[in-house]
Order: sequence, then structure tokens, then C-alpha cells
Amino acid sequence: MAALSTTLPLNRDSVCSAHKVVKNHVHRTPVVTNQTLSELASTPTTVENLKDTRFAGRTPAKPVLRLWFKCENLQRIGAFKVRGAFYALHKLSEEPGWLEGGGKEKGVVTHSSGGEEKLKIKILLYPVHGNHAQALALAARENGIKAHIVMPEISIPAKINATKGYGANVIFSGSTSVEREAVTEKVVAETGARLVPPYDHPDIMLGQGTLGLELQDQVESSIASQVNPAGQALRGVYAAAANKTKGNKEGLDAIITPCGGGGMLSGVALSCEGTGIKVFGAEPSHQGADDAKRGYESGERIPTVSSLTVADGLRTPVGVHPWSVIFERRLVSGMYSVTDEEILKTMKLVYERMKMVVEPSACVPLAVALFDEDFRSLVEKEAGEEGWDLGLVFSGGNVAVDALGKLLAGEK
Amino acid sequence: MAALSTTLPLNRDSVCSAHKVVKNHVHRTPVVTNQTLSELASTPTTVENLKDTRFAGRTPAKPVLRLWFKCENLQRIGAFKVRGAFYALHKLSEEPGWLEGGGKEKGVVTHSSGGEEKLKIKILLYPVHGNHAQALALAARENGIKAHIVMPEISIPAKINATKGYGANVIFSGSTSVEREAVTEKVVAETGARLVPPYDHPDIMLGQGTLGLELQDQVESSIASQVNPAGQALRGVYAAAANKTKGNKEGLDAIITPCGGGGMLSGVALSCEGTGIKVFGAEPSHQGADDAKRGYESGERIPTVSSLTVADGLRTPVGVHPWSVIFERRLVSGMYSVTDEEILKTMKLVYERMKMVVEPSACVPLAVALFDEDFRSLVEKEAGEEGWDLGLVFSGGNVAVDALGKLLAGEK
Repeated sequence: MAALSTTLPLNRDSVCSAHKVVKNHVHRTPVVTNQTLSELASTPTTVENLKDTRFAGRTPAKPVLRLWFKCENLQRIGAFKVRGAFYALHKLSEEPGWLEGGGKEKGVVTHSSGGEEKLKIKILLYPVHGNHAQALALAARENGIKAHIVMPEISIPAKINATKGYGANVIFSGSTSVEREAVTEKVVAETGARLVPPYDHPDIMLGQGTLGLELQDQVESSIASQVNPAGQALRGVYAAAANKTKGNKEGLDAIITPCGGGGMLSGVALSCEGTGIKVFGAEPSHQGADDAKRGYESGERIPTVSSLTVADGLRTPVGVHPWSVIFERRLVSGMYSVTDEEILKTMKLVYERMKMVVEPSACVPLAVALFDEDFRSLVEKEAGEEGWDLGLVFSGGNVAVDALGKLLAGEK
Repeated sequence: MAALSTTLPLNRDSVCSAHKVVKNHVHRTPVVTNQTLSELASTPTTVENLKDTRFAGRTPAKPVLRLWFKCENLQRIGAFKVRGAFYALHKLSEEPGWLEGGGKEKGVVTHSSGGEEKLKIKILLYPVHGNHAQALALAARENGIKAHIVMPEISIPAKINATKGYGANVIFSGSTSVEREAVTEKVVAETGARLVPPYDHPDIMLGQGTLGLELQDQVESSIASQVNPAGQALRGVYAAAANKTKGNKEGLDAIITPCGGGGMLSGVALSCEGTGIKVFGAEPSHQGADDAKRGYESGERIPTVSSLTVADGLRTPVGVHPWSVIFERRLVSGMYSVTDEEILKTMKLVYERMKMVVEPSACVPLAVALFDEDFRSLVEKEAGEEGWDLGLVFSGGNVAVDALGKLLAGEK
């Protein structure tokens, strides 16, 4: 990673600078609309449905929501992580002396983890760091930089092969995080490679934030031209998007992104600074994976998480740098969490209704829009009958397809 | 169905007429490109890989293929069938005397079947007639016409609910085709409803053919503007599409569609008449489901099929009207068939690499492009190093998601 002294200030302009670099290497992923899911999100649930939930006894909220999905599951390597990886390597290559000192040959290193030690007995999904490892391997190859990826020996073959397929030097380690980090340090000592962490660095945050800029622009163009991103006239619930009298009249009113380490959430929040678009974070609540929400409410970052939530990309505590944006600068307006059951119910809806392959972590923001009565009440209160145009980030689509059936049948 | 005397001639102009009607009711579904799958299709297999196949001993072909996917899995009701249904009802409403005779109130009827009797012990997928039944129910509702759908009592609840959800009158029958047809005849006798068959009628063929017109137009625009349908510059393998010196220089060279009853295949063939674009049909070979291919080769239509191929939408013999276009007029240049194993391998690739939810039947054309050495040799011979721009129709995405895992793990 480039030295912290070389990073740009954490603001919207810097996200725009990052986008100028990143857009040459990644897909401008499509934004997709969906009538059925927008109608579902705009339909109040019943008192009966709330009975056995944390919202028991409430009057169901009546929000009006037009949903706009940013499809980073269709991104290169199947996840948004390439944005941060490409930008991080660009900044590294600009660091004074790095190239001259043989930086490309010394290379970069990261380790792939994320609850994977539990893999043998649990779910067969790529963990978030699997996405980061593949993203780094790809970005390094395209920049002519050597990449070392430290992986537990028990990693699933598909993941090892994918990472090797991008030309990375895969180094095996034991399966605990202590063992992985020891091997990583050894690689750094022996090769001089630079560590590129998955989220806790300003360059990564700015890189991930570029998806927020695209999403804003794509929705604005759609509403202005009254044509949806698939090239058809905006119709049904979306027709009302052009007639708002309050909120952000010409585009999105709010965005929800998943929050694991917080790299994407903080980057997207920066991309919205000064636009009037509210940004919210979404987490799984299972076994305390809602660390950012709890931290946000108590005022103190929670540095460790140990959860086997089905949203395996979000089993990480929020990082120090993201936290400074999310909480200290209040660029995120609120944090919400949903149960694993709600995440899987949402995932099933996405497969059935949108015909999209998404990983469980990617479904968490939509689960908030559909099932979190706190969020839904907020929308009702703030937007009334006009409703909100709400951006939701489908962060990735990397699932081990063999395990999909069990997942979608509600088993973990 | 409207009387045969009222149907338009089976040619490209009639498909254009149908499109003027249909386009107001259905999505202009996106056309998607994919570098990885195009590269895979353009890579020769090995002698070793061919060893245990029907192509053992051959020298692997070296085709160059740029793939363009028409995403009818993103169509309304999740399948192309709405095109034929909307056009059929439009023609019916234009039939002299139908409206005046109380046609809307008498309604339309179809029966939903497709190997479903085996459902309890076999795969949980919606059969093709399930797609047709839902399509008819939707089109009838939007035209203010009553719809009766005859279904076996053992139908899966998701399907019954989906059909009821479109406002249709669901009538249960026994599970054999004899029982279903008896109930259907009774409905016709009692209500005066018109039978709308799933494929064997010129109006249905012309309606389904409209997707062929869109596909041609979408690919031509992409190549002319050098921008892919997602709005990015054509790059990688697709960059060569604009520099062809032979074949169809400005657009598609060929299209492969699935072939069950042949409604879509014959309609697409009509949409390509006179354009120079070759059209091919793709079938599963399992348990003789390749009836159209065998008929095409022997010169005689095969009127019955009894197959439990995993491509459950294609368990149907080709119809009389489609056959007249496919074989008698030779508007289809060839038929190819693939094994269930090849179909499932292809399906897994689509989920992993394209992040698209498709049903097994939808994967059959891509399976031909990837695995059928006869087809691949033909492309090599005809197109050489310039290769072909090949349209592939993803016909639908209606799978029972709970069953996906088993399917994708290669179990049936």
C-alpha cells in the first residue's frame, strides 16, 4: 500500500480523482430497476407478520420506495473489490521511489481469510477476502506487478484456482489468522512486497467509492431522460421519480450499502458528500456481526467480530479509516441490521424475481428496505407519499453454486 | 386462438407486424456480451476431452465465436412466452365477431403440463407449459379477457400461486395428459373459451419471432456504435466484430435458439428470412428429446417424445406449423443436440461467469456452441479466423430455486 502521507483528502473530489483512474480498468456496471420488488418494498407488512420479530406490536410502516440496483455482481471478478485494488496499485506506482526501487518485482501481498477456518463444516462461499485476493491478483497482473496471496491450505479448490488463474503466487498457511499473518510477514520480509489490506486504507475507500459516483449519475440520467437503464420508458412505480417536489428532485434520495470492513460504505458516503443524498449502512445481526451499528449507537468502534453469519462477506469489524468517515464525520446517516433469515428470504426473491446471481452479503441492503421497520418508518416520515428513490448496492455475486440450493432452501 | 384463416403469411414482414403489437406489452430485453465465455467458446478443446464423447477421435475444431445473449430470462413472467401470448390475444380480439359474441367474457383456456406428472419424484422445475400458462394468464388479464388454466392437482404450490396471482381461474385435473385434455374440452364446452396452444399456431410463432428482430437490431447497433449494450466500448474479442470482410458484415452471422415445440425457433427463423443470418436449433439428446434433429435428418417430423431431460422446457415434439418453417421451407440451417451433462455444465458456467439465473432449457444453445464439435467445425470452416457473431437466446429463468443446488452439483 502507498504511504498514508501520499493519500488524497477524504472528500468527494478525491473520489472523482479515483474514478478517473479506476474507470479505465473496471466495468461501469449496469443499474437495474425492478417493478415487483419496488412494489413489494412499498407495501406495508401486516401486524401478524411482525408478531415474532423485533418489531412486534408496531403499526407497519407505509414507505414508498423506488429501488435502483447497482450491479457490482456483474463487475470484474464478480465483486466491487476490483475498484479499490486498481486504485491502490495506481497510487502505489505513483509513490516516489517505489518504481525505481524495484517495486513491481518486489510486488504486493495480501492474505485471504474471513471465517474460512470454519469452511469444512459450514458454508461453501467465498469469503470477502477471497474477493479482495482475486481483485488484487487481477489488478497486479494488469499492472505488471507481482502478487503474493497467502491462503489457508484448506481453501476450496475453486478459489485457489481462480486466484492462480490471475497469475498470483499462492502461498499456503495454517488456517488461523495468527498463522496467516505470520506467513504474510515472512513474505514481506523476504520479498519486500507491500501489504495491500482489504478495506482499512484511504486509497481503498476512495476506490470503492467510485461506484457511488456512477450510481448517482446513472439514476440521474435515467430520471432526466425518463428511460430506464435497459432502454425502455420509465413506467409503473418509476414514472413518479420525475415529479418529486421535495428531497433530491433529480436523482437518488438515499443509498444503502453493505457494511463489513466499511471500505465501500465510507467510500460511497464520501461520493455523496454535499449532494444531499443520504447514505446508510446495512449489516447482518447474527452473532454480533452488527458491530458498526452497535458502535455507531454507543459512540465507540468495536474492533473485533466473531460471527458465522450467512453474509460471509460481512464477518469483519469496521476499520479505523472507514470509521472516521462513517461515524466521526457523520457522513453515514444511520446503520441498520437484519437477521440471517431475512437475508436468505431476500436472496431468494432476487433469484426468483430479478434472475440475478448475488452472494448473501449483497442482499443485506435490500433486506433492510424490505424488512427493517425502523428504516421503513424513516422513509415514510421523511418522504411521505412522494417516496424515495433508493440506491441499493449488489456488492458481489461470488457464491459456490453447488451450495446455492441449500442456502435458498433456507438452510445454512 | 384466432381462426387460421385470419393469420398473416409466415414471413419476416409478418414478424415485424407482430412486433408493432407485442412491443407495447413486453420488455425489450437486454442483449449481454461476455468476454470469458466468448474466449472459452473460441478455445479448442483437447483430444483427451473428446475421448469419451460422441466426437472421440476427432481433431478439436478451432472456431472463433463472439457471443451475444438475448436475455428473455429477464422478460415478463421470466420467459419469452409472453410474446406469443400477447400477439395471440391481439389477433383473437381482431377476429370478426369475436368481441361482439362476448369473447372477452367467454375467455381463453390452456392446460399446463410438461412431464409434470413425474414431478413428485423428479426435478422441481416449472415445465414449459407452466411458462405458457403464466404468460397467457398475464396477457389475458391485461386485455380484460377471462383466462382458464387447467393444471394437474399435484402442481407445485409456487406455480399454482403464480398463475392465480395473474388473476386466472385455475382448474385442477388428474395428472395424465388424457385427463387434462378431457377437463380442457369440458371447459371449452361449458364456457365457450378459446384454446390457446403453447406453440403450434402461426400467431404464436410470429409473436415469439419478435425477439429475433430485437436481437438483430441490438447487435447491429452495438457493432455500429462500437458500444456494448451495457454502454461500454466494445473491447477484447468483441473489438473484431466491426472488421469483418465476409459473412454478415454489420451484425449477427447466426443465431441458435432452443427447440421444444419449435414456436420460437420457427419464429426467429422467419425474423431472419432474407437477412443472410443463419438460424440453428438446439435440443437435448437425452431419451430422444432430439426429435426435431432426428426428424430434420430423416425428413419426417416425429410426433411424440417421452423424455425426462433436465431441459424440461424442451420435452415436447416439434409442432406441425413450426415444422413447415424449420424443415419444409429450410429456414433453419441445421439442428444440434447436447447431453444433459453438457447442459448442466453450461448452466453452472452461466451462473458463475454471467451471474444470471437461467433455466436448463435456456442453456442448450450455449452448450451447442461450447461442446458440439459438428457445430464448432462448421463455424471454423465457414468463418475462419474472422469468426462469427453468434446470437444465443436465453429463453427463460424460471427455476425452483430450492432445487438449484442439486442441479448445479450435477445431480438430477
